[in-house]
Amino acid sequence: MKPFGPETGGTETGALKPAGPFSAPERAAVYRAIHERRDVRGQFLADAIDEAVLSRILRAAHAAPSVGLSQPWNFILIRDDAVRCAVRGAFERANAEAREMFEGDRRALYSDLKLQGISEAPLNLCITCDRRRGGPVVLGRTHAADTDLYSTVCAVQNLWLAARAEGIGVGWVSIFHEADLRRILGLPDHVVPVAYLCLGHVRELYETPELEIHGWAHKHALADMVFEDRWGGGE
Amino acid sequence: MKPFGPETGGTETGALKPAGPFSAPERAAVYRAIHERRDVRGQFLADAIDEAVLSRILRAAHAAPSVGLSQPWNFILIRDDAVRCAVRGAFERANAEAREMFEGDRRALYSDLKLQGISEAPLNLCITCDRRRGGPVVLGRTHAADTDLYSTVCAVQNLWLAARAEGIGVGWVSIFHEADLRRILGLPDHVVPVAYLCLGHVRELYETPELEIHGWAHKHALADMVFEDRWGGGE
Repeated sequence: MKPFGPETGGTETGALKPAGPFSAPERAAVYRAIHERRDVRGQFLADAIDEAVLSRILRAAHAAPSVGLSQPWNFILIRDDAVRCAVRGAFERANAEAREMFEGDRRALYSDLKLQGISEAPLNLCITCDRRRGGPVVLGRTHAADTDLYSTVCAVQNLWLAARAEGIGVGWVSIFHEADLRRILGLPDHVVPVAYLCLGHVRELYETPELEIHGWAHKHALADMVFEDRWGGGE
Repeated sequence: MKPFGPETGGTETGALKPAGPFSAPERAAVYRAIHERRDVRGQFLADAIDEAVLSRILRAAHAAPSVGLSQPWNFILIRDDAVRCAVRGAFERANAEAREMFEGDRRALYSDLKLQGISEAPLNLCITCDRRRGGPVVLGRTHAADTDLYSTVCAVQNLWLAARAEGIGVGWVSIFHEADLRRILGLPDHVVPVAYLCLGHVRELYETPELEIHGWAHKHALADMVFEDRWGGGE
């Protein structure tokens, strides 16, 4: 079944159309999605995600900007228990190694953190980047080879925000040996697994990132991140 | 001047709070931002961007997910004419090389495309990634070194969507030798210029990507991008 058919209302043309600011309530909704989005590990409900909802959030991802309009992404929807079990095993192996990279109290704290919801989330999703998409020379990639990976991440973030609006939580799991994901998912050599995501309905989310709650890391102030005209510049 | 001070309403705690789906109008607003967002090259108005608007869109970027809560980004706001002129020169040099990489009709079409608005846009913004942010071992980056770059791209996409809601157009320019950007902006070796963006108010946007309008590339159907359980899998 491929429920992701042609878009409805396909009236797109080459025309310019009015594009001013959104209304105040519309703006508030966009900012709500941006600020309430969380990286979800433990709040997944077991309920399946409706196909209409899934179609909308995939369509949001597919509407991302891409270098040279190459759209280098693919979406591997993973529901099969055997595949998720293998991915879970790959996470456990890498995570045991990761834990050893921290010392003392940090290692103990690391061990206590819940870093994935691979088995609990009813849907896993690997978003990949096909590094050959668009041919040997892609407009905009001529001097910046990684822009195809960046395009794929734009698709991830679009999906993440759309998911928040739909009441779907998303958690990005990155503690894998890439070779394990390639083997389990059968990825060709020219395809990179950019993001491995766990998705499911959520009833609640944390107000602030869990790593801050647990004292692992603290947020920087925006003012410290902003420069004027050059690195380190400002008034 | 650093107008990007502490957030108001700083009542964040470790508490879980209700997080169901948005209302239908809120969801529509999120999808409107996602689907109306364009990569803007030629529609910039000269009007300066209000500091309150700029603060909101930078705050949206700063709310992006980041690996290990490392927040590896910085935001270099570029208004100085001399800096923009130097960046424009760097673009022109790289673009002349890029043009030669295409053959025949493609080269002629490439030459006709407008690929940047560096001089016309009232604000340029370089979003960088500090590859040392978070220290030598970052949670979630232990087995995937590029996740800091990916976090930075999530910030770019948050900013892009917030900008659409504010009536601000954004264009991502990637046709540079990275060394030129590093020199002009004084970037340390451990800081990568992930995205060079042109920003300004817009009154109109294209309904569909300009590269499609000009016949340079065509959008793929979402259905062709979706697999089940493994690469190439599906029904």
